[in-house]
Amino acid sequence: MDPFMHAAIAEAQLGLAEGGIPIGSVIVHQGRIIGRGHNRRVQQGSAILHGEMDAFENAGRQPSSVYHDAVLYTTLSPCSMCSGAILLYGIPKVIVGENLTFMGEEALLRSRGVDVEVLQDATCIELMRGFIASRPELWNEDIGVESDGDA
Amino acid sequence: MDPFMHAAIAEAQLGLAEGGIPIGSVIVHQGRIIGRGHNRRVQQGSAILHGEMDAFENAGRQPSSVYHDAVLYTTLSPCSMCSGAILLYGIPKVIVGENLTFMGEEALLRSRGVDVEVLQDATCIELMRGFIASRPELWNEDIGVESDGDA
Repeated sequence: MDPFMHAAIAEAQLGLAEGGIPIGSVIVHQGRIIGRGHNRRVQQGSAILHGEMDAFENAGRQPSSVYHDAVLYTTLSPCSMCSGAILLYGIPKVIVGENLTFMGEEALLRSRGVDVEVLQDATCIELMRGFIASRPELWNEDIGVESDGDA
Repeated sequence: MDPFMHAAIAEAQLGLAEGGIPIGSVIVHQGRIIGRGHNRRVQQGSAILHGEMDAFENAGRQPSSVYHDAVLYTTLSPCSMCSGAILLYGIPKVIVGENLTFMGEEALLRSRGVDVEVLQDATCIELMRGFIASRPELWNEDIGVESDGDA
């Protein structure tokens, strides 16, 4: 497997081990990981630290020339917030682990010129299928969807 | 002035006093501010804490029913990342201080059914004009634009 998707999956698995939502991401510049992260909704009570956002934050402030020459790996199709961050910083290429359990804003990204590649990786799919089945209300919260009983 | 835009401007001014980028935001639910924030790029070395994102984070985890009945106030037209967060959580109404110094993703928001109102408030415009004139490289970094000499 691509070592960078492997690193994103390791982040997702770390999040799961922490009791969190198993989505991970890494940002790669010239063959080196400059930021890695995973969803921190549970761990930090965060509404904005999706895996991709956590990777952007952990990469720190970067010049636009770095973003414009970077590849973002994420285990799951990026939602509108994370896609917006990708567009803000002009990341030209996004490698997505899978989009079967959740379809993010891939069409918007492509319409703005981003190269989006989807692997449909079995490990990524299984991570999300197991998580969604066990914690549907937490998953719905993370993607802004109302759960039954959400008052 | 609308007291909630006044609160967003107070956040922007607080950010400026801290040496930061003067953009502020508040999220209002049923007449009460549930989250307030300002850009923290300088103060926390953050690549993701725009004013709106900081307000989402400070509001904490909320049920979708709260987001769906909330109004987001921001002193400046929201960029693609912040607009993506607005779409993720289904915020139905956004009040924008001004869009003369920066035009964000207002068209995308409206195309997805968000009610976007722009005030062209003189204080908001002056805050950004003064900041952009004094720190153009910092402003370009915040919106993902290459500055002269950005290697």
